[in-house]
Amino acid sequence: MQLLNKNYSNYLFKKKMLKIYNTPPFAQWEEVCKRPLLKAENCSNIVSAILKNVQLNGDQALLDYTKQFDNINLQSLKVDQSEIIESENNVATNLKIAIDIAYANIYKFHIAQIDNEKHVITTEGVDCWRKYVGMENVGLYIPGGSAPLFSTLLMLGIPAKIANCKNIIVCTPVDKNGNINSAILYVAKKVGINTIYKVGGAQAIAAMAYGTETIKKVDKIFGPGNQYVTKAKQLVSLQIVAIDMPAGPSEVLIYADDTSNPAFIAADLLSQAEHGADSQVILVTTKKQIIDAVNQEIILQIASLEREVTATLALANSKAIILEDVNTAFDFINEYATEHLIIATDNAEELCTKVVNAGSIFLGHYSPESVGDYASGTNHTLPTNGYAKMYSGVSVDSFVKKITIQQLTKQGLLNIANTVETMALAEGLQAHKQAVSIRVKQIKESEF
Amino acid sequence: MQLLNKNYSNYLFKKKMLKIYNTPPFAQWEEVCKRPLLKAENCSNIVSAILKNVQLNGDQALLDYTKQFDNINLQSLKVDQSEIIESENNVATNLKIAIDIAYANIYKFHIAQIDNEKHVITTEGVDCWRKYVGMENVGLYIPGGSAPLFSTLLMLGIPAKIANCKNIIVCTPVDKNGNINSAILYVAKKVGINTIYKVGGAQAIAAMAYGTETIKKVDKIFGPGNQYVTKAKQLVSLQIVAIDMPAGPSEVLIYADDTSNPAFIAADLLSQAEHGADSQVILVTTKKQIIDAVNQEIILQIASLEREVTATLALANSKAIILEDVNTAFDFINEYATEHLIIATDNAEELCTKVVNAGSIFLGHYSPESVGDYASGTNHTLPTNGYAKMYSGVSVDSFVKKITIQQLTKQGLLNIANTVETMALAEGLQAHKQAVSIRVKQIKESEF
Repeated sequence: MQLLNKNYSNYLFKKKMLKIYNTPPFAQWEEVCKRPLLKAENCSNIVSAILKNVQLNGDQALLDYTKQFDNINLQSLKVDQSEIIESENNVATNLKIAIDIAYANIYKFHIAQIDNEKHVITTEGVDCWRKYVGMENVGLYIPGGSAPLFSTLLMLGIPAKIANCKNIIVCTPVDKNGNINSAILYVAKKVGINTIYKVGGAQAIAAMAYGTETIKKVDKIFGPGNQYVTKAKQLVSLQIVAIDMPAGPSEVLIYADDTSNPAFIAADLLSQAEHGADSQVILVTTKKQIIDAVNQEIILQIASLEREVTATLALANSKAIILEDVNTAFDFINEYATEHLIIATDNAEELCTKVVNAGSIFLGHYSPESVGDYASGTNHTLPTNGYAKMYSGVSVDSFVKKITIQQLTKQGLLNIANTVETMALAEGLQAHKQAVSIRVKQIKESEF
Repeated sequence: MQLLNKNYSNYLFKKKMLKIYNTPPFAQWEEVCKRPLLKAENCSNIVSAILKNVQLNGDQALLDYTKQFDNINLQSLKVDQSEIIESENNVATNLKIAIDIAYANIYKFHIAQIDNEKHVITTEGVDCWRKYVGMENVGLYIPGGSAPLFSTLLMLGIPAKIANCKNIIVCTPVDKNGNINSAILYVAKKVGINTIYKVGGAQAIAAMAYGTETIKKVDKIFGPGNQYVTKAKQLVSLQIVAIDMPAGPSEVLIYADDTSNPAFIAADLLSQAEHGADSQVILVTTKKQIIDAVNQEIILQIASLEREVTATLALANSKAIILEDVNTAFDFINEYATEHLIIATDNAEELCTKVVNAGSIFLGHYSPESVGDYASGTNHTLPTNGYAKMYSGVSVDSFVKKITIQQLTKQGLLNIANTVETMALAEGLQAHKQAVSIRVKQIKESEF
């Protein structure tokens, strides 16, 4: 019996350790880079039915789903102003102060992303520039339920406001009592968003994509969610609405060497692992010893976590990868294209120059991922699942359109007329040439 | 018989006129803004089969499709360096000069889009910035066949090069003799792209999305194409590849008043109409007289066009919309969210401030759309079909990722530690807090 227990604890102990890949050859990298497969991918039919129902029945469908899924009879979809004002009383003072500080940092980082419109005279008399305009209607989805992510509302609401979006709406599910989490309402007030709807899940995405009697159709939908929300965003993005980016489970990759602190690294790996069983944590190094030290620290730290079970499940997908040298290590890191990259070494800034694919990078020993999740100022809505190869995280850019403008003087048109006419004819587009020629003729005639 | 002819010519005459909508009430705007429905939407099955075949059979599938669709037995998919060098001799000197001038203008406009990385100290000791990195692997699709769009290769290749993309590949179909159009090869050489593949259609998109023995998988696919290409781009974008933007038929909207020149406007409308039967041309004004004058000019000008039939078909979808006043007119224009907007009035720059949704704007009497198509310097790859509400045209941004970076000093971490810890606990993420606390403890201990 005692032996059995010892074996079982030994088994658990091993499960909590990083699985080691020793110098995998390049041909195996694709396999090593694979993310854990999402289970229950097949929610397409359920989500399609929800989308159709909301499109047909509007508000009533939303109210019905809240009754069906949450057993709540909502009187109204929209959060009342009094609820928003009241929320201030329900949020602890220290949390309010923390939110205010995080707000200030996130605002400072994002306001610097506002660009000026530069006029470029490409040829004398040909003036070209870009005008930056905030999208008129944007919808922010904030998951609720067990962990209401008020930090995500800061990360989406602040750049939306800075971009000067006219109509910003928030959809978020109610708790067991039919209320929205107070911290979410406090953040909404802080950011300056008044339009909040009590609706979650795929039906919230449908409402924002198609519009209902109460909820106005938006141009772009932002925010994380479960697999139903993700599938709904994917499906509506094929129609006349944009989405922030494709979504997948969160992930962190840490690069360590013998200057790294194993306890810090273990804490960072665990902070990612507690997110969910499908989170992925990766340690890359050229030194085998650091892996052993980190594994010991994981065992020490994991026992004290409230989410020990979740973190243990995530560690089953974890990988510690030893690579031949620093350059090979960073080739691998670029191939993996991680959401969060912590370079936990003395020479982090130097190594950072080697990175071409990552969502957000944390340099040195005192920049844990959690500072970026909340308060360093950078955005925490980032590309996962290898999408860092072609997508950036959310920024003010995500809420802005850049409209190009050109204004030609008579002389400007004369200067490039021949170029346009020649190219248009070579592409077989005579009327394109004609639009220039008819003006050139008039300009020349009016001169004499 | 003569009467019949007269009636028929009267009928044709009417078909060539803009269809007038007199002050449609707001409730009808959605209907008026609808684009002509695309026929043959149901190419999903054909395209899915092509994608699967290329995924399974790689190069062989590509060669088979070229044999099947174009009746060409290709020896090799890749364009040989000698073909690229030779192309120079096959392009007329005046076209080469025109391409060189267009190149210079497009380059000048796009190089100004390169931003500098701004460091933002959000809190003392908390340094945040963005690093701009060109995507490593991008694929440009250039339609060929009847009208080889070498101008599109300028519009995609120049920003890709400026963004410093490492691997830029071009896929474009061969002509009846199995060759790539010389002007396309000349532009590729000018831009500095050496990797060109002889493959078109949905199979080209499949090759770039999945990779084959010869063609390396890319991270993002750019470029226009027919409905098969468009569908293929849409389908692969649901997987691990990004696309420039959703595509639809080209369109122009012209705003005119009594300062406008009807002959210029007619020429601009026709230059859009010649693109294809599904092109849409719209005239918006507050003055009925200008519509009559434009209609007369269309009749005069259309007869001399080589693409008269195409233009006539497109005019069947055209609309001339009279609105009550200038503000209502621009509300409508923003609702339509056109790809190209020509403000053909004396006060164009002033009116331009009212525009929030458009792909590219052409100001005044001497800025026809065709200058933007070829040589003003702005990009001609623009959002159609109302997507200007949430998408921008292609720019250097389209080829760049912006990676956020943060670096905290010990003091920086201490400064925001409490904020992060408080927020993490409030979201129920204890390990997130722990990653900060373990460092704070070490910093404080090392101080004493």
